Amino acid sequence: MIIVPEKEIAALITPEASFEAVEAVFAAMSRGDAYNFPVIREAIGHADALYGFKSGFDRAGLALGLKSGGYWPGNADKGLTNHQSTVFLFDADTGQPSAMVGGNLLTALRTAAASAVSIKHLSRPDSKVLGMVGAGHQSVFQMRAAVQQRGFEKVIGWNYHPEMLSRLEEEASALGLPFEAVTLDEMGAQADVIITITSSFDAILKADQIKDGTHLACMGTDTKGKQEVDAALIERATVFTDEIAQSTTIGEAQHAVIAGMNPAQITEIGKVINGDHKGRSSASEVTLFDGTGVGLQDLAVASKAVTLAQEAGVAIEVAV
Amino acid sequence: MIIVPEKEIAALITPEASFEAVEAVFAAMSRGDAYNFPVIREAIGHADALYGFKSGFDRAGLALGLKSGGYWPGNADKGLTNHQSTVFLFDADTGQPSAMVGGNLLTALRTAAASAVSIKHLSRPDSKVLGMVGAGHQSVFQMRAAVQQRGFEKVIGWNYHPEMLSRLEEEASALGLPFEAVTLDEMGAQADVIITITSSFDAILKADQIKDGTHLACMGTDTKGKQEVDAALIERATVFTDEIAQSTTIGEAQHAVIAGMNPAQITEIGKVINGDHKGRSSASEVTLFDGTGVGLQDLAVASKAVTLAQEAGVAIEVAV
Repeated sequence: MIIVPEKEIAALITPEASFEAVEAVFAAMSRGDAYNFPVIREAIGHADALYGFKSGFDRAGLALGLKSGGYWPGNADKGLTNHQSTVFLFDADTGQPSAMVGGNLLTALRTAAASAVSIKHLSRPDSKVLGMVGAGHQSVFQMRAAVQQRGFEKVIGWNYHPEMLSRLEEEASALGLPFEAVTLDEMGAQADVIITITSSFDAILKADQIKDGTHLACMGTDTKGKQEVDAALIERATVFTDEIAQSTTIGEAQHAVIAGMNPAQITEIGKVINGDHKGRSSASEVTLFDGTGVGLQDLAVASKAVTLAQEAGVAIEVAV
Repeated sequence: MIIVPEKEIAALITPEASFEAVEAVFAAMSRGDAYNFPVIREAIGHADALYGFKSGFDRAGLALGLKSGGYWPGNADKGLTNHQSTVFLFDADTGQPSAMVGGNLLTALRTAAASAVSIKHLSRPDSKVLGMVGAGHQSVFQMRAAVQQRGFEKVIGWNYHPEMLSRLEEEASALGLPFEAVTLDEMGAQADVIITITSSFDAILKADQIKDGTHLACMGTDTKGKQEVDAALIERATVFTDEIAQSTTIGEAQHAVIAGMNPAQITEIGKVINGDHKGRSSASEVTLFDGTGVGLQDLAVASKAVTLAQEAGVAIEVAV
């Protein structure tokens, strides 16, 4: 079996490669060629940790396996990442383990790739202003992936802790784009595309703050109770998602569904990729992608990392 | 992280070490110190395979992780084991992967250890005749673990395909015990302890075939629809199990529960180990252990294998 250590990932896999892998697996999900297994997520009662698995099988790409890991809040004090992820892949023909891949950076890349896929397929082609809500660890990956999809001329940002906005400013600068810190009203009035990537448990953006034609990629909500935009904004927007079952239960749409929204109003992004749904229907429509994060994304980027590691000669082979 | 390849396991871990590990984790489960997470089990729609995970956390032993794998019916033709299992362990303090352990032999050992634990705590101390129902791959592990618990003087066996009984005869001979092939009526009339280890979907043993005072360890039923003994035998016996939730849904007790049995009649074996339940109450009582197989057993024997591999100098270290 192949081992690709966490430290090798950064030099191997690009946002472009992640984008291709995630777009392909969203398409496979929608065709019925790939599906996610139920998610396991447990508060283990030790070290305040949340631990679990996301898993699935892509019959088209023959990617079978799981991402295992979780959140250990005490890790930062030990010089480790709080989020710990490892992807395990199996040979779909024999069930034998085929690869183990460090999953920390891959998680950020596959999440950024998902919102970039939504920007490609749902945002207005003439989008000029990219709005970032959230300035945590994943925000820079989001920005980097987003700017490849549209000719953005400016990045604007808002964060609950404004002192962290320098992270966004530095990244925008590295990408050759001007940056402006804004209020949420200014965010909604200016941005053509808004990415929300926070751990919020209260709506940050409201329906009446958003201008017509905006595309929102809500990437932070992956747990019951989390929320980045108000239910009225979900009702106003045409809603797309990676997986409807997750969107309505642990994703951004959970609150609108509780408030009476019909889950049938939500469309899998794979349908748009496959040409089975037209996506955006007008320049004034508000579109919203509810990115909940599925195991198949992890398997897709990890499979790609294995191929690239073998090509680069950095894959470790172990007889098991 | 540590890798213990499948080929090293046989030389590392004994039935005795497996017994200790499994007895300890059953006790921890019953104290509330260890619990299993929900089981994932999927027919993946490729290679006729069943694939999934059993996982859990033992706060006492700090064993966190999962056994991943499944059943690939075409493997035998490729010279591989149909059942494929790998155990992944994680550092409970940081979430980082700590070990990967070949799980094929461990699965047989931990299953045999579970029935041996039940024989130690539930069978009559003067048990002389060991009855084996089933002569497949796991049967010899069962016999080997069982004979360490009581002064058995004879092994009797029954199998759906009688030509396979030579496997039981050879193993009994290796253990210094006479062997006799019997009918199911003779099995019930003679055996003091009966181990059932089959993949049956119909009751093999009936309530009226069993003599008073018998202890049964039903180890084959781990899926909806499987069945080794009739519901009337479950009703006649005092029933113990590894985990009640599994016993009543995918274990041997599932059929009795459907027929109206109250799950509250079933006792966790850990309670007996901990002295919170007296176990067998008389020499004439029929006791039955419904061994469904839990992830914590796998984590327990895999953790033991890691320690032994480090001591023996055969653990492979990989920086991840």
